[in-house]
Amino acid sequence: MMWHETEVTKRLSLKYPIIQAGMAGGITTPELVAAVSNAGGLGMIGAGYMTPKDLESSIQKVKEWTDQPFGVNLFVPENPVVVQEEIERANQLLEPIRQKLGVEKKKEDPILNNSAFDEQIQIVIKNKIPVASFTFGIPPRNVIEQLKQNDIVVIGTATTVNEAIQNEDAGMDMIVVQGSEAGGHRGSFAESFDQAMIGTIALIPQVSDRVKIPVIAAGGIMDGRGVLASLILGAQAVQMGTAFVTCKESGAHELHKKAILNCSEEQTAITSAFSGKPARGVNNEFIRMMKNYESELPPYPIQNNLTQDIRKEAAKQGKREWMSLWCGQNPRLSQHVTAAELIRSVVDQVEKSLKLIEFQKVNSE
Amino acid sequence: MMWHETEVTKRLSLKYPIIQAGMAGGITTPELVAAVSNAGGLGMIGAGYMTPKDLESSIQKVKEWTDQPFGVNLFVPENPVVVQEEIERANQLLEPIRQKLGVEKKKEDPILNNSAFDEQIQIVIKNKIPVASFTFGIPPRNVIEQLKQNDIVVIGTATTVNEAIQNEDAGMDMIVVQGSEAGGHRGSFAESFDQAMIGTIALIPQVSDRVKIPVIAAGGIMDGRGVLASLILGAQAVQMGTAFVTCKESGAHELHKKAILNCSEEQTAITSAFSGKPARGVNNEFIRMMKNYESELPPYPIQNNLTQDIRKEAAKQGKREWMSLWCGQNPRLSQHVTAAELIRSVVDQVEKSLKLIEFQKVNSE
Repeated sequence: MMWHETEVTKRLSLKYPIIQAGMAGGITTPELVAAVSNAGGLGMIGAGYMTPKDLESSIQKVKEWTDQPFGVNLFVPENPVVVQEEIERANQLLEPIRQKLGVEKKKEDPILNNSAFDEQIQIVIKNKIPVASFTFGIPPRNVIEQLKQNDIVVIGTATTVNEAIQNEDAGMDMIVVQGSEAGGHRGSFAESFDQAMIGTIALIPQVSDRVKIPVIAAGGIMDGRGVLASLILGAQAVQMGTAFVTCKESGAHELHKKAILNCSEEQTAITSAFSGKPARGVNNEFIRMMKNYESELPPYPIQNNLTQDIRKEAAKQGKREWMSLWCGQNPRLSQHVTAAELIRSVVDQVEKSLKLIEFQKVNSE
Repeated sequence: MMWHETEVTKRLSLKYPIIQAGMAGGITTPELVAAVSNAGGLGMIGAGYMTPKDLESSIQKVKEWTDQPFGVNLFVPENPVVVQEEIERANQLLEPIRQKLGVEKKKEDPILNNSAFDEQIQIVIKNKIPVASFTFGIPPRNVIEQLKQNDIVVIGTATTVNEAIQNEDAGMDMIVVQGSEAGGHRGSFAESFDQAMIGTIALIPQVSDRVKIPVIAAGGIMDGRGVLASLILGAQAVQMGTAFVTCKESGAHELHKKAILNCSEEQTAITSAFSGKPARGVNNEFIRMMKNYESELPPYPIQNNLTQDIRKEAAKQGKREWMSLWCGQNPRLSQHVTAAELIRSVVDQVEKSLKLIEFQKVNSE
């Protein structure tokens, strides 16, 4: 079987240039991460919202189930100013939903605690995880240096050329370049979110031309066509999120999987109402209801803490209209298969596409 | 030299699967159209705003300069309800700009006249133009039938899977599928504009899987990487707009060309303030000033008529802040070259990419 070797596959010892996005919120079960790595891709633990204890236990399970490399994705902490009026306004807007679900308003205001990040970093180092990727900004220089001193490959996230250059300048080894099609949270940190909604087909070549570190394409990539197109556009690998959410090993709620499997390309929307940070998901009642008030809500992660009980209870009660159903713009290509079957089908399609190109070659001159 | 033969290149007798977008507003000079066709692509006269007389004269000139096939792009007429308050509100908002430029408010209200469309169609038939493409909806069935009876290939525009299916059902021979990266006007007609902002890398495979007629990819495609990626995603050809605007033969204002050549990916914006219909261009003072009032303005083409004098006078005075500077999301790849040089560089890069893929092939199993 033919395949491409790229800087990314060589450096990360991967069979295929396919990285499973480190999606937070229980999607990246140890089963999923290990299955992806065993199938020749790079499994990633989405540790963004994990306690150090949960991260440690997740790592141990993945290690039991695979001897292949895998990674951990972390959120760079943010410390927004807490504005009491924004919290009150959010609680006022969320109250009707809480009542529908029978959820009580939390007594205390959300507390910001970033000490978990440093503990997460130490766990990654202690467990000799070969790859650490970051979203929502660039981690402090000493964190990057410490990881690199321990031979851990550090991967940043960018949504514009400028953000990619900032990642390279900070010493990142590789960079995930996230197009506007991507499901879940936008990784934008230097540009405002709406300025940084650049489609993958335009963003990848523009970034590739400007940075020397390998580019990993993300956003709207669901199958072999997307993978091969990304490599041609200048990427050395792809990161796929939505495609793995519907996999059998994924920990996503069954309603979340169904929502993606039944979604069409014009049925997603970007909202900051779930977390305070713009993210793409299947449009639902929650998104529609909050649409006109997004600018009044507190920033991430405050709003995320405020809606946590609602999302949890909605999932428990099976009410998808109040759940965050993260999904990219290519849901018609989603499949309910195992991670190994997904990767196999991607690889087969890449080979088919390559043959198609060769078949189409004609001498026109 | 190796190249791909596709259904589109065969049907349209093209050497390369590259179509120059039929951009309206004086960009597609006969020089540009003929140069593109002479270089092996398909030149298109952007006749959207042309009088029948201007279209006739443009066709004659193109025919003098090339014996290769070329096409005409037309706007499907729209007849929105004229709401006097919207026109007054628009005039009120435009007044400060008119004063800055020394433009007087038009005495009469804008008049909607669709008879030009039927005349344009008859000119296309009479002159045996081999290709007619349409934007802003699907033309009436009798128009499609008449064109097909005269062996004219009819091409529609879609921004969602649903719109593509509607085009196929209406009898279109091929379809331009416009991703959210595209510069200029959105072709959306069945879905609301914001729902239909789907990135090219996600839209092309989803449409290709659902329609049998050939798909022509548009949006963010500027070079050989974009062309080859589009073919892999399922398209049979590409349509490039912004890349041709900066060509030496293009009739775009020098300030428009400069604006694109100096633009970066995060500096474009979608606005409906110039024409009443959402379109992507280089962000400027006009777009920023009108941003919060877009929903109060009259629809296309009424708003387009109201801003016409402003755009014209701004161009004459060299004031780019009040001009419509249409541009897609991939401006860093723009070049100030001849159309033949552009097409040559695209073709060379496709060949280079193909070789790169072959070079990278390794036996991993």
